[in-house]
Amino acid sequence: MSTESRIIARLLGESPPAPPAGPGDDAALVPGDVAVSVDTMIEGVHFDERLSAADVGWKLVAVNSSDIGACGRLPDWSLLALSLPRPLDDDWLDGFAAGLHAALTHFGVRLIGGDTTTSPGPISATLTIASKPGGPFITRSGGQAGDHVWVTGTLGDSAAGFLHGTPAGLAWLRRPQPPVALGAALGASGLVTAMMDLSDGLMCDLKRLCEASDVGALIQPEQLPVGPALAGVSEVLPLQVAFGEDYQLLLCAPPSSDSALNRLAQSHRISLTNIGTLTAERDVMLRSKPWPKAYFSHFESSQVC
Amino acid sequence: MSTESRIIARLLGESPPAPPAGPGDDAALVPGDVAVSVDTMIEGVHFDERLSAADVGWKLVAVNSSDIGACGRLPDWSLLALSLPRPLDDDWLDGFAAGLHAALTHFGVRLIGGDTTTSPGPISATLTIASKPGGPFITRSGGQAGDHVWVTGTLGDSAAGFLHGTPAGLAWLRRPQPPVALGAALGASGLVTAMMDLSDGLMCDLKRLCEASDVGALIQPEQLPVGPALAGVSEVLPLQVAFGEDYQLLLCAPPSSDSALNRLAQSHRISLTNIGTLTAERDVMLRSKPWPKAYFSHFESSQVC
Repeated sequence: MSTESRIIARLLGESPPAPPAGPGDDAALVPGDVAVSVDTMIEGVHFDERLSAADVGWKLVAVNSSDIGACGRLPDWSLLALSLPRPLDDDWLDGFAAGLHAALTHFGVRLIGGDTTTSPGPISATLTIASKPGGPFITRSGGQAGDHVWVTGTLGDSAAGFLHGTPAGLAWLRRPQPPVALGAALGASGLVTAMMDLSDGLMCDLKRLCEASDVGALIQPEQLPVGPALAGVSEVLPLQVAFGEDYQLLLCAPPSSDSALNRLAQSHRISLTNIGTLTAERDVMLRSKPWPKAYFSHFESSQVC
Repeated sequence: MSTESRIIARLLGESPPAPPAGPGDDAALVPGDVAVSVDTMIEGVHFDERLSAADVGWKLVAVNSSDIGACGRLPDWSLLALSLPRPLDDDWLDGFAAGLHAALTHFGVRLIGGDTTTSPGPISATLTIASKPGGPFITRSGGQAGDHVWVTGTLGDSAAGFLHGTPAGLAWLRRPQPPVALGAALGASGLVTAMMDLSDGLMCDLKRLCEASDVGALIQPEQLPVGPALAGVSEVLPLQVAFGEDYQLLLCAPPSSDSALNRLAQSHRISLTNIGTLTAERDVMLRSKPWPKAYFSHFESSQVC
């Protein structure tokens, strides 16, 4: 069990949430039929000098919006808790506010309030985000053996930016553009059985989906979508499955949905790739290859899946 | 303008929230008629060795619940974002979880999810809290000249604990018990015109209420309720008005509500004291005395009102 899982187990131990509001899902469902989520970004843990203040503001909204889209919902409102060292760095704050508002506009999120405080340590920003009410709420637990496994966009872009500094990779690392509107459309379509966003890498995240769905998976490594961010990188597989910060959708659907899924993705101008199949046998495997060793994403040496 | 006000102005500048979801109120109103709020506690800023891990867990829920009660609502669900240094201090985490769950039970709040992360700096805990849906939403802005001004409980308890170490003072500093259920009952009663919780001291908070309501106030300093926490303290007024962390309710109501207010408070076994009157003239004054110099609550040298 990872350190984070241990912490969550202790914190939630005495009040286990009722499904489908599980700690395993990207968001929780609350009264009023609203999906809510919270994510923190800390200087030196979730970002460093590779990200400008504006990038941090953008990314905070983007990764939180990704959680809502991954549940098949559209984001609606947010609350910001921001802790900043003193003396206040006005330039940093201005940049952060500019990036934050650019992303709020892009993802259609309102900032309705928050809390600001002094920090004697690193910058810390926590965003709580909520969906518009109503509609299906897609979890990780509905996958069925025989379902096709799909991912949006390309994998490994943030990894290529972080580890190799490729321009397209750095662009995604700094300003990820998760397919939130497509996630909401997929939720509304009734086509998908399980969905989540890829934040910790396909290897970790697919294992979580399979565990929640009580299935296994067989993934075709040569099918994993490669984008320009990986140009010039010799060994791409570890970046594509074992780093994280992809903020793409991982979704499952019966083969009968193939055509409709492709049409829906095309209408959103998002690429969608079938990368394998869910299996009744519970192993989660790459065909003909072992899973590579995990990178320590988020700079956290304790992170394992 | 305080540093916090400057930060809030910059962050909200480009998307001013619609009333009554103002940054000036203890909570914001969101679709579904739910009041939401967020508050952060950081080691070395909002707590130090005076508070055990269990106290921190309790207080995080208590101060957030206080914000919801101050809007005339009952709290319902919460999301926790917790950042902890590594290696993980299991004893601290166990204590925090115990205090957190004791307060969740006491205030009737469900913890439905959250985010945990490594921190290279101090412990930081952010709780987002939401009310049950429906019912009146009481703001700071409805006060009318001629209204009586009331406070619940006693003032200066946390100050006495923090500055003088009195036992009852330390008890309130560590485990505040804001009158959340009474706040919700006051909201539902239709008796009050304006309400907020006292987190930064009567001097600051009353000025905020008066500014929002476009009125002034004349407060009778000898009426400010004194409890056992102040026993043996020679000069109590600064502790009662200029420190903070009272987590009592400050409320206004027309004199015709006096009897009904008293009956409601008695039914909740909470003391309620008339401390003065709102005035058409916009000065906010203590009768026959100047306001004392502000303590720097929350250890924040930048905090002024």
